[in-house]
Amino acid sequence: MVQTTQYETANGDAAVGDSQVDHDMLASATMFSNLPAHVIALVQSMSELLSVPANTVLCRQGDLASRLFLLLEGQVTLSNTEYSGVSAVVEVVRPGGHFILTTVLAQMPYLMNAHTTVASRVVALDAEQLLRAIQQEPLLASAILRAEAIDFGAMVRQVCDLKLRTTAQRLGSYLIELSEVQAENSATFRLPFDKRLLAAKLGCRQENLSRAFAALRNLGVETHGARVTLHDIARLRDYAQVGSAEGGSPAGR
Amino acid sequence: MVQTTQYETANGDAAVGDSQVDHDMLASATMFSNLPAHVIALVQSMSELLSVPANTVLCRQGDLASRLFLLLEGQVTLSNTEYSGVSAVVEVVRPGGHFILTTVLAQMPYLMNAHTTVASRVVALDAEQLLRAIQQEPLLASAILRAEAIDFGAMVRQVCDLKLRTTAQRLGSYLIELSEVQAENSATFRLPFDKRLLAAKLGCRQENLSRAFAALRNLGVETHGARVTLHDIARLRDYAQVGSAEGGSPAGR
Repeated sequence: MVQTTQYETANGDAAVGDSQVDHDMLASATMFSNLPAHVIALVQSMSELLSVPANTVLCRQGDLASRLFLLLEGQVTLSNTEYSGVSAVVEVVRPGGHFILTTVLAQMPYLMNAHTTVASRVVALDAEQLLRAIQQEPLLASAILRAEAIDFGAMVRQVCDLKLRTTAQRLGSYLIELSEVQAENSATFRLPFDKRLLAAKLGCRQENLSRAFAALRNLGVETHGARVTLHDIARLRDYAQVGSAEGGSPAGR
Repeated sequence: MVQTTQYETANGDAAVGDSQVDHDMLASATMFSNLPAHVIALVQSMSELLSVPANTVLCRQGDLASRLFLLLEGQVTLSNTEYSGVSAVVEVVRPGGHFILTTVLAQMPYLMNAHTTVASRVVALDAEQLLRAIQQEPLLASAILRAEAIDFGAMVRQVCDLKLRTTAQRLGSYLIELSEVQAENSATFRLPFDKRLLAAKLGCRQENLSRAFAALRNLGVETHGARVTLHDIARLRDYAQVGSAEGGSPAGR
C-alpha cells in the first residue's frame, strides 16, 4: 500500500483548506440532518472545510481511510480500479451526500477512488476523532450506522438494477430520479454530467447509451445536448419499473 | 410493514430451535474468527442454533431486523424484490458467511429476503443484545464494523463486475472462486447450486448462461451437469481479468 498525497490535482494544485465549518453546512448533509445542535457541534470540532478544484483526487483506493467526506457543493465520482487496471464508476455523489463511510468506520483501506469532476466544496472529518465521538455519543453512532445501511442499500439496489434491467430502463429510472418531481407528469432539467460519465455510471458503452436514449424517445424523453425533457413521467416510470415511492437515495446515486 | 412469522417454510413446518451454540460454531464464522474466547462467550449468550429445512424463509424484506444470522452448514440465498414484484438474487451465502448485518446495526427493516435453498444449520443472534454488547466490547465492535465493510466491498465488487465484465467473464471469475485452488492450474468440483440459481446470481438469463459456458469451453472449462473441470486456471484467470490475489469474499458470494 503506497501512501499518496491527499488532494492531488491533475496540475499539481493543492486544495484550499479552511476551518470555518458551520452548523448549517453539517446539517445539510443527509447523514447528519436529524441530529440535535450539541451533536452537530461535536462533529464540527473535527471538521475542516475544503475548496477543491475540478479533477482533484480526494482519496485513493488502497490508502488507509483517514477522513470521511461530506459534499456541500459540486460533484464527486467514486470509482473502483480492478486488477486489470480498468476502473468502473460506482457512484456519482451529489451535494448532501458523503463518502467513503464504511472504510472509515472499519479502519480499513479505502475501497474506492474519489475525485471531483467539477470545482467542489467538501467537509473532511478526521476518522480517529469520529470513531472516538461515536463511542461517546449514541445519537451520532445511530446516525452513522443508519447512513451506512442506506449506503449498503444503494449498492444492493444497483446490483439489482444491473441484474434485472436493460440499459434503457436503468437510464429511464435515473432520469426520473433526476427530475425530482413528485406531483407533475413532466419535467425539464440538465444532465449533471457529460454522457461519457453517464454511460460509465450506468455501466454501458457510449453507443449503448445513445441507443437507450433513442429507445426512450418513444416514451416522451426529449434531449438537446445535456438538456432533457420528460413529457410523460408516469409512462416512463411504468417502462422503467420504478415505484413512485422510490426516490433518489440520500447518499446520492 | 407487515410482521410475518419468522422461519416460514413452503409447507408450513417451523425450523427447529436448539440453544446449544458452542464456541467452535461461532469461531467458524468469518466475522468472529479472530475474536478471543471471552468475546466469543459474550456472543454465545445471545445466540440460538436453528436447524432449518430447505426453502425456509429466514427473513423477509421490509420486516424490522431483529436477528443477525450466521450460516454453519447449507446455503442461503439473499434476494431483493423490486417495486415491480420481480426478485433479483443479490448473493448466495456459503458456510462461514453471515446475513444481514447492516440492517441489524442500523435497526432498520431488512433490505433483503433470505431463504435456505438446502437444509441448513444457522445461528441466530438477537439484534438488541448484539447492539448492547457492541457498546460494551470494543473488540466485538471492531469485528462487526470490519465485517460490514467487507460486505460493502463485496457489493462494490459486484457492481463493478456487472458494469465492466461480460456474462462469460463473470462466470469464469466465479468458477475460479469456487475452485479454491491457489497452487494448481486445474480443478474439478461440483456447482453448489443449480443453473437457474447460478444464472440469477450472475444476473443473466438461462440461455445466456449456456452461451457463457459454451464460450468458456475454448478456455478449458468442461462441464457434465453440475460437475465442472477447469483445465487451465491461469488462462481462465487472464480471460476473466481476475487477479490471483482476489479470492472469494469471506461473506460468501
